Amino acid sequence: MSQISLGRYLFERLHQIHIDTIFGLPGDFNLALLDKIYEVEGLRWAGNANELNAAYAADGYARVKGMGCLLTTFGVGELSAVNGIAGSYAEHVGVLHVVGVPSATSQAQKQLLHHTLGNGDFDVFHRISANISETTSIVTDIAQAASEIDRCIRTCYMTQRPVYLGIPASMFDDKVSAKLLDTPINFKFPENDPDAEKEILDQITSMIKASKKPIILADACTSRHDVRSETKKLIEMTKFPAFTTPLGKGSIDENTPNFGGVYVGSLSNPEVKEFVEDADLVLSVGALLSDFNTGSFSYQLHAKNVIEFHSDHMKIRKATYPGVNMKYVLEKLLKVVPSIVENRKDTRKIPTAKYKVVTAKDNENLRQEWLWNHVGDFFQEGDIIISETGTSNFGIVESKFPNNCIGISQVLWGSIGYTLGACVGATFAAAEIDPKKRVILFIGDGSLQLTVQEISTAVRWGLAPYMFVLNNNGYTIERMIHGETAGYNDVQTWDHFLLLPAFGAKNYENIRVKTVGEWNNLIQDKAFNKNDKIRLVEIILPVMDGPDSLKKQAKLTESINAKNM
Amino acid sequence: MSQISLGRYLFERLHQIHIDTIFGLPGDFNLALLDKIYEVEGLRWAGNANELNAAYAADGYARVKGMGCLLTTFGVGELSAVNGIAGSYAEHVGVLHVVGVPSATSQAQKQLLHHTLGNGDFDVFHRISANISETTSIVTDIAQAASEIDRCIRTCYMTQRPVYLGIPASMFDDKVSAKLLDTPINFKFPENDPDAEKEILDQITSMIKASKKPIILADACTSRHDVRSETKKLIEMTKFPAFTTPLGKGSIDENTPNFGGVYVGSLSNPEVKEFVEDADLVLSVGALLSDFNTGSFSYQLHAKNVIEFHSDHMKIRKATYPGVNMKYVLEKLLKVVPSIVENRKDTRKIPTAKYKVVTAKDNENLRQEWLWNHVGDFFQEGDIIISETGTSNFGIVESKFPNNCIGISQVLWGSIGYTLGACVGATFAAAEIDPKKRVILFIGDGSLQLTVQEISTAVRWGLAPYMFVLNNNGYTIERMIHGETAGYNDVQTWDHFLLLPAFGAKNYENIRVKTVGEWNNLIQDKAFNKNDKIRLVEIILPVMDGPDSLKKQAKLTESINAKNM
Repeated sequence: MSQISLGRYLFERLHQIHIDTIFGLPGDFNLALLDKIYEVEGLRWAGNANELNAAYAADGYARVKGMGCLLTTFGVGELSAVNGIAGSYAEHVGVLHVVGVPSATSQAQKQLLHHTLGNGDFDVFHRISANISETTSIVTDIAQAASEIDRCIRTCYMTQRPVYLGIPASMFDDKVSAKLLDTPINFKFPENDPDAEKEILDQITSMIKASKKPIILADACTSRHDVRSETKKLIEMTKFPAFTTPLGKGSIDENTPNFGGVYVGSLSNPEVKEFVEDADLVLSVGALLSDFNTGSFSYQLHAKNVIEFHSDHMKIRKATYPGVNMKYVLEKLLKVVPSIVENRKDTRKIPTAKYKVVTAKDNENLRQEWLWNHVGDFFQEGDIIISETGTSNFGIVESKFPNNCIGISQVLWGSIGYTLGACVGATFAAAEIDPKKRVILFIGDGSLQLTVQEISTAVRWGLAPYMFVLNNNGYTIERMIHGETAGYNDVQTWDHFLLLPAFGAKNYENIRVKTVGEWNNLIQDKAFNKNDKIRLVEIILPVMDGPDSLKKQAKLTESINAKNM
Repeated sequence: MSQISLGRYLFERLHQIHIDTIFGLPGDFNLALLDKIYEVEGLRWAGNANELNAAYAADGYARVKGMGCLLTTFGVGELSAVNGIAGSYAEHVGVLHVVGVPSATSQAQKQLLHHTLGNGDFDVFHRISANISETTSIVTDIAQAASEIDRCIRTCYMTQRPVYLGIPASMFDDKVSAKLLDTPINFKFPENDPDAEKEILDQITSMIKASKKPIILADACTSRHDVRSETKKLIEMTKFPAFTTPLGKGSIDENTPNFGGVYVGSLSNPEVKEFVEDADLVLSVGALLSDFNTGSFSYQLHAKNVIEFHSDHMKIRKATYPGVNMKYVLEKLLKVVPSIVENRKDTRKIPTAKYKVVTAKDNENLRQEWLWNHVGDFFQEGDIIISETGTSNFGIVESKFPNNCIGISQVLWGSIGYTLGACVGATFAAAEIDPKKRVILFIGDGSLQLTVQEISTAVRWGLAPYMFVLNNNGYTIERMIHGETAGYNDVQTWDHFLLLPAFGAKNYENIRVKTVGEWNNLIQDKAFNKNDKIRLVEIILPVMDGPDSLKKQAKLTESINAKNM
């Protein structure tokens, strides 16, 4: 086979980098492209329930496997996905958004096709997506098509941002040389400017030497830009106390002795807050700052010495080094670090109250404070733990993760309903890595309603996530911010136990827990711990119950929103 | 009360023009604005299941009541609605999209708030919406705020296009004079240029006089730009044979003797096609041309004499008259028409085969061809009839509408799942007009999955639409275009009878029909004809069954999409 179709070329390229599930929906401008998925062995078409859910799924998949692919149709399909793609952009997630678009002929003739605005403007959807993409491309010339596809995939992976790739329906079957596939896409970052790198390393080493109370603070981009192992080594070698942010949860090992807890500015546990804010040097890896990730910007890093490691720049105190990639800096730092730190003495006591300790008797009703303190008892090494914006992603900060867990939450973008789609995507990814790998979702009864039909996709593929539905009768996070008893924070009461059978599930389990004892029995049940069927666990909670940190954040948010200056 | 809050001002203005349901979801940047809805007596907050559904609902409501309002939160909320708003733009539907945005202070400081892209760009979502809005506004100055709101409402109503109105959360409680409400918003179109209008009327009258075989062809904008009654009178006075397009269905009375059928170019019934294409003068009212509305542009209006009536221009043969509104032209034309046509003789025979006649025995399984020919037996005067993109909106063309029905389908934009949201919105509107007014939805099992949770909103409000779910096991329209047996055109099999109870319905009915006899019995049942509860009727149909016109359109579409020139 010396020639292959352009469509097949795209999917072979994705398969080469282990993107083995494609998310999206069929539409008449992409149908013939979908045929090509079936030509690549080991690739599957998820066939989601709607495009927003599909975008969330591609995002969740990417957070596990490094990159995801969403495929939609022109206009109606792609626009439904905009919010999902914007979330991937905000939170640095590499999602390639492939769109089947009308032929160049239709476009040139400005035909009033269906799925257009009826004004002959065929570029408008592309323009919309350009606002939320690292780069975009509409393929027009078959001679350039393969290299354009390579460029899009490369940019998506390396910047961990969405990329928009439009392919005209008339070109899916155009031929390109199969030989091109023999040369893998180059994902290697260019070397850093050696002078800049040397200056940075000198600075860092002298700052480490001068410091008495250094810490490491790992945030979202530690995972997203793949410096988890370098950061792990840095923590091990330096033995510096190490902390995460809410978005960074899962990016470092919480079971090493020098793990100090989660830092969220003024919302941190007091001991953690004091420790972090007393540091005289902060090695900040992969920071992704936002209000909910910092306790409404209540970070008080008193240390004048903050060193920021980013994927595309470094910052040391006030000096920025553009174009310098942290991965190489960290690699080189790891070589020199042992000699710098070998004789250090550190008498600081790592915070012991990393997680609040909450006790309750078996016959007591479940409350969030107790629950988040104890969900960790259910977690196992390697789990993927997903927490919805709202009570869940505030609560999860209080739970202990075993090693090698992946935490997924959308703290910056915060689109409600996101996690159900992300859970389905992550479960596809987990099943590709190891069918025993568990995916555990925490979502509220309110958020669930936005994206509920995605459960159907999981059922269709026999996926087996654990879906914990926190039923507290409406939008509790919004109630805490404003309108505790307002009608607009109510949601329709659903019978959650009918969802799985409605979506056609045969091998499933519905469980309801209301008391501490019921919870404890459930998670100690060996059969329950095996992810051999899809499960919906409804957790009954009081309406205005929530994690403490959420209550504090809600107050801050209301006052900021109402601020009229 | 001499001063009222800006938030309340907005809702009082909407209430004045009988927009009594506001669609959307709460979010922390709009919560305090939602409070104001409850201050206006007679206004209600629908509280939809997600923002795309809410946008569809606002669109469906607007198609019944003339305008709708969608309210979302900054970033995550508004972006989920983009596809719905784009559909309203394409199909000329007036939807005011109100967005609660961060305070001017937050914006000026470029705070890295949640619901932003984390790059300090607060205008990006506004820019995205500007592509699909007639006009946009972000309120910044309280002194101009009331008049900006008025301008947005006026533009939305008069152009029948979406308008984007951003209001900072810090301004919801700012005060404006209540007196402003005493002067209604002026919705009157400016008079047409009298010289242009005279020239146009002279032309039209002489062309009518010279014609031997004139026809009237009413399209979507007859309804959307509110010239239904003028068109009705024109048909009655002239007795010219009158036709509609698929999108125009419901805009003229199908029971007048001179109604000739639905014209869809080469997809029309042969007798209709021949009659229309033999005309020597076409009075084309409110045309909204697109491939699916014209049988892939197979219109063959041989008549050199086409007069196009539009909301913002007129076109006579090749001459365009910009800025001339059809409503005034029609009003004036109606005054002179009787004298022009009084002695006309027209020997043409109106097509009798407007709808194909299909017969079947009671024990036969239902097929689409028979079904669409007979659904009209269920319809009553005043019904709102909604048909989903796919088999339904092709099929509905073959059904006879009683008088004063409203037809809703999205032939141009064609976003699947749209009609379930639109159905809920239209049912809110119908209930406001007359609780006995029935809303009847035809949707496929595939399309239903995209927006299914909106049924929950109908249940919550005790609304009682008829939801006919055509179960033919997947995306039949796509199968017909490409990939008849392809996996990507399958959908997960649902148990539709569990949906209403899952969404908390108590007073509901689930019905399944498979044969002609079951259908006939059902629609003759008096109890069933009363819209006193929400009903889901599953219609079992063969997989590759579809209306003839769809089969033809599908072939055309596949060949056009694959065209490689």
